[in-house]
Amino acid sequence: MSAFNEMKTSNRVLMGPGPSDANPRVLRAMSTPLIGHLDPEFLEIMDDIKAMTQLTMQTKNPLTFVVSAPGSAGMETCLVNLLEPGDEAVICIHGVFGTRMADIAERCGAKVIKVEAPWGTTIQADDVKAALESCNPKLLAIVHAETSTGVLQPLEEISKLAKAAGVLLVVDAVTSYCGTQLKVDEWGIDALYSGSQKCLSAPPGLSPVTFSQAAIDVLDNRKTKVQSWFLDLSMVKNYWAGAKRAYHHTAPVSAMFAMREALRIVLEEGLENRFARHQKNHELLRDGLEAMGFEFLVEKPYRLTMLNAVKIPEGVNDAEVRSRLLNEYNIEIGGGLGPFAGKIWRVGLMGESSDANHVNILLSALKTII
Amino acid sequence: MSAFNEMKTSNRVLMGPGPSDANPRVLRAMSTPLIGHLDPEFLEIMDDIKAMTQLTMQTKNPLTFVVSAPGSAGMETCLVNLLEPGDEAVICIHGVFGTRMADIAERCGAKVIKVEAPWGTTIQADDVKAALESCNPKLLAIVHAETSTGVLQPLEEISKLAKAAGVLLVVDAVTSYCGTQLKVDEWGIDALYSGSQKCLSAPPGLSPVTFSQAAIDVLDNRKTKVQSWFLDLSMVKNYWAGAKRAYHHTAPVSAMFAMREALRIVLEEGLENRFARHQKNHELLRDGLEAMGFEFLVEKPYRLTMLNAVKIPEGVNDAEVRSRLLNEYNIEIGGGLGPFAGKIWRVGLMGESSDANHVNILLSALKTII
Repeated sequence: MSAFNEMKTSNRVLMGPGPSDANPRVLRAMSTPLIGHLDPEFLEIMDDIKAMTQLTMQTKNPLTFVVSAPGSAGMETCLVNLLEPGDEAVICIHGVFGTRMADIAERCGAKVIKVEAPWGTTIQADDVKAALESCNPKLLAIVHAETSTGVLQPLEEISKLAKAAGVLLVVDAVTSYCGTQLKVDEWGIDALYSGSQKCLSAPPGLSPVTFSQAAIDVLDNRKTKVQSWFLDLSMVKNYWAGAKRAYHHTAPVSAMFAMREALRIVLEEGLENRFARHQKNHELLRDGLEAMGFEFLVEKPYRLTMLNAVKIPEGVNDAEVRSRLLNEYNIEIGGGLGPFAGKIWRVGLMGESSDANHVNILLSALKTII
Repeated sequence: MSAFNEMKTSNRVLMGPGPSDANPRVLRAMSTPLIGHLDPEFLEIMDDIKAMTQLTMQTKNPLTFVVSAPGSAGMETCLVNLLEPGDEAVICIHGVFGTRMADIAERCGAKVIKVEAPWGTTIQADDVKAALESCNPKLLAIVHAETSTGVLQPLEEISKLAKAAGVLLVVDAVTSYCGTQLKVDEWGIDALYSGSQKCLSAPPGLSPVTFSQAAIDVLDNRKTKVQSWFLDLSMVKNYWAGAKRAYHHTAPVSAMFAMREALRIVLEEGLENRFARHQKNHELLRDGLEAMGFEFLVEKPYRLTMLNAVKIPEGVNDAEVRSRLLNEYNIEIGGGLGPFAGKIWRVGLMGESSDANHVNILLSALKTII
């Protein structure tokens, strides 16, 4: 007999930077007995996922699919397929995830031109314009919703600059997708990745991605092989959209079952209703926290509704409060990253976790602890 | 309302090259409500998974962990972390997966020296010896269980050659792990990857991996960054085994729940019992198929017990029979890959699918159809 006991977990309330709570329907779908990854029934499920991802991303891009790995692998998918050694890339950095994009682009052998803004603020269009004019870039990459700081980055003006400069626009929508307005086609986004475990409220482990025709053209005209075999879209796309649906790797069947059900729930609610719910619960949390004296890190117009970055009040012990929230109330919130470690909390109201009861139990618990 | 209906799948009997059937306990564990990927409870679950992976791989390697992506990403993890541009690598090719290793090694900028054997046969030690002497390689990579051909590759003599030459031994154990003898430490394997969906019978999507101290030394002494951010073990290892358990990416929490339960089931059965069960059901299938006139592709001593490659009899229509098995009997078996497409079937008896009832229903259905 094994010395390892049956798994026991606590009934957490997930209000951190993801994963968010999953709907019981999603968990139930995920526990469906397995079918093969090349079974005609599974290929139909992939088609459904693709169609629903197009609807939720507001795009008609035929190359819309799901990377069989978490959001970071979605980020890497976009960059390794579009960049070759010697390319120039303008990367906007105003938090952890812009930093990560620059790191990956450099590993692709690209020369990175950085556009920076202080963490907690937005990237300025003028700075992007200057950077685009200073070099001969192939792409411009920017984070729509910086999970490390709680900043919502306006994209429309920056997209116009990218178009004018004739460069591809690559967007990180890990935290914004399915929680706030995101119009891939209308905003002229060429490559975009997200994650399953944020406002979509599927379990973590998958990354929905879309590529525009302009991005596919760049892929099709590469001089070198994509450095990652696993993420090479010239092969992956044949599994998702090829006439023959060629085997590439074994898809995570159960996670795809969950993804399909989570997408169905989003469409049943409707995108606009879902965005409005995220807005309403953000306001409920904001009013409650401000009444307790908390200050938000980010200026009002640029706050994410699904990820609330608040300053930890003077004299309050970060680790102790988060540990008491977890151990006494089963509530998970996130700490700060990098320069914000110990200075901010990140309260997630994503997908299923964007809920008035979640807000109320957190506010009540915080009032008792602090 | 969405136009997408509730997901409906057929109750398949999985006897292809993976995924295999999952135990209901594994599906139930997977549907446990989510907890955070940095929750102390989740870190404990990761510790359990690591310990049980060490036991099932028969290794004490501290760097034993699970890649958050399928087996192909496990393959890429081993190669991108150990190879740098300009390195030489001896890669053994006797099927699809050796071919894939060579492709990935070349994408790492390595010079690949190939040792080939006809598909369906084993790699010969003498050929390995000659290749090792012909160059100055950093590693020797070989597939233990070629899923594309059904060949079990003896490793002990080849391991001795690798040690004598002072090169790292990298092994693909995707299909052999948890189904037949695999002694990582005793056989001197330096880096090994597998998949969750074969003889472990967890859902597809994860890749257990182990690195020896010699492999870690190579990783620690790299001159260049690992080309993949997502698979860079210099960071991933701190999440799995670091004193601080630093955030790297968001782990696939639900899939890890499933993995833990699947490992627990393997240890409850016991490795030797499990290997014996795979042997017994292979013999049952073999006797039944041979009585019907089928011939195996592989010579007797080198047949995989969990993946039976049999020649399609003259005059039998491959696609039609497999389609009837699936549609009339809900049985999935695998077709041939590459040069064996249309020429062989691959019948998987992996993990939960290694079962006398599975064998009997397949034999009965085949007798009716053919």
